[in-house]
Amino acid sequence: MAEFKLIDLIRARATQARDDVVLGIGDDAALLQPPPGMQLVVAMDTLNDGVHFPPGTDPAHVGWKALAVNLSDLAAMAAEPAWCTLSLSLPDGDPAWVAGFLDGFLALASLYDVALVGGDTTRGPLSISVTVHGFVDPGRALRRDGARVGDGVWVSGTLGGAAAALGQWRAGETIAPALRERLERPRPRIALGRALAGVANACIDISDGVLADLGHVCVASGVAVRLEVDALPGREALRPHLGDDAARMLQASGGDDYELCFTAPGDADATVRAAADAAETGVEVTRVGTVVAGQGVQALDRDGRSWLPARKGHEHFVP
Amino acid sequence: MAEFKLIDLIRARATQARDDVVLGIGDDAALLQPPPGMQLVVAMDTLNDGVHFPPGTDPAHVGWKALAVNLSDLAAMAAEPAWCTLSLSLPDGDPAWVAGFLDGFLALASLYDVALVGGDTTRGPLSISVTVHGFVDPGRALRRDGARVGDGVWVSGTLGGAAAALGQWRAGETIAPALRERLERPRPRIALGRALAGVANACIDISDGVLADLGHVCVASGVAVRLEVDALPGREALRPHLGDDAARMLQASGGDDYELCFTAPGDADATVRAAADAAETGVEVTRVGTVVAGQGVQALDRDGRSWLPARKGHEHFVP
Repeated sequence: MAEFKLIDLIRARATQARDDVVLGIGDDAALLQPPPGMQLVVAMDTLNDGVHFPPGTDPAHVGWKALAVNLSDLAAMAAEPAWCTLSLSLPDGDPAWVAGFLDGFLALASLYDVALVGGDTTRGPLSISVTVHGFVDPGRALRRDGARVGDGVWVSGTLGGAAAALGQWRAGETIAPALRERLERPRPRIALGRALAGVANACIDISDGVLADLGHVCVASGVAVRLEVDALPGREALRPHLGDDAARMLQASGGDDYELCFTAPGDADATVRAAADAAETGVEVTRVGTVVAGQGVQALDRDGRSWLPARKGHEHFVP
Repeated sequence: MAEFKLIDLIRARATQARDDVVLGIGDDAALLQPPPGMQLVVAMDTLNDGVHFPPGTDPAHVGWKALAVNLSDLAAMAAEPAWCTLSLSLPDGDPAWVAGFLDGFLALASLYDVALVGGDTTRGPLSISVTVHGFVDPGRALRRDGARVGDGVWVSGTLGGAAAALGQWRAGETIAPALRERLERPRPRIALGRALAGVANACIDISDGVLADLGHVCVASGVAVRLEVDALPGREALRPHLGDDAARMLQASGGDDYELCFTAPGDADATVRAAADAAETGVEVTRVGTVVAGQGVQALDRDGRSWLPARKGHEHFVP
């Protein structure tokens, strides 16, 4: 299918209506009307075939995930999503693949009232870049640099499921359905992120493993964290598939969870739980550590012994 | 080089200061403060290795062009550029390539006061996605759907040079320096675009050849265009390298010029020239046709005969 037919196909499907979209797909650029006084929150992430998803993945899952990983970044900033742009590089212009991709992408966009307003389609190895835009009241964004000594360290949902699914796929095993869902259909924690504005001091989304991502918070905030690895939620779901050591490893260092990791004042545990409950996300929050003075993340097992992972988290360009 | 080292390298270089950048590279998302009352203008374009530039192209040229093609979209909307995000997919994390890329990318960003505020670096076949953000006063954006019967049709600068350079490269010839400059270092016509707000009725940037791009204006505006192909500027620069027929073809149907094509009321030629002069861009504007009733672009040679190109313009996924 020719490029302009593909753009027409995408345009015909991108029907999410928003009053603040003055001009969407079809011109040199989109025209958008930001709400007065709000800050704009912008994130951009790319998924590449064979790197971020196994070759042959159902295009609907690729579409969902391409938007989900971006919305997860907005969630971590406590932003309300609004618009996105999409650049699709395709080895050929297969309209069936694009239609499947849009099924997943637009299903998630619809859930969060996100309008697809522009982008690009081009020839190249399969790659999807998405830019998302959201809003936040000035001063309300959750950043990586706000953690303070004495804060509790929290995570949402469960950890390790996506990495376990990927491990099963790599081993040529059948992927357990519950784990597959975690890998293919991550849920951006938008409602939770927004509920945590004014409650949490710092926040990051867990894309590279909680150890690695907490490390970024430590550097940005100039603090250290004591992390209780056996408190990380979700071990039970991994037990049918993995031994305890392997499960602990994936929970601490596996990627692709797209949960939130945040810090909040040490005496605010009840406030944190109340905020999470009030957001009605159905997502639990679990306290898993404490911010202390120093540098870096110190992981401790259930006996209080220092625990060192074989690898610290997913990072590109590291063999 | 590891991913986070690469991000640090980019962050250390992305020093363009803007008061409206609350938080740039280094968190889950950028925080930006749009100016009150203005519309946000957003475009996103991707360049792929071997598709949009020859393999082995100097990374500084790739960097310049990756931003230039995006800024050209803002120019066509009469927008003032402000921010960009960059997603780099790299087969390996070669810091020398990235440093060269940033030389070109940031040199152009600096010319237009554009801050690089975020993005992504990831492993994959060489691919560069950029999203640009600019501002325009409500109602002042130039769109594709504003052309009216009786309008003059104009182009900026010269056409055909980039396509001629690409042809020389494909033929294994030495690329003439003046043509190479047109291919590798296109200048986004930001000042001209802004000067045309309130003067032009419709505008598009010429990325796929003026015939193809004018075709989009015709469809969006519900009009036809009579285009005088022998009036297209820049034939002289092509003459040392190409016969007249081949030159005409590249001027009408070659891509990558990144000039502006716009329409303005038929009695406003002096106003158009005065606006272009006042913008002090050093870029000529040339009237090359007329908007008429009907559909599509009718190309005429100097004798008023209908002229049909062998191919209509660059389009992905068309062999």
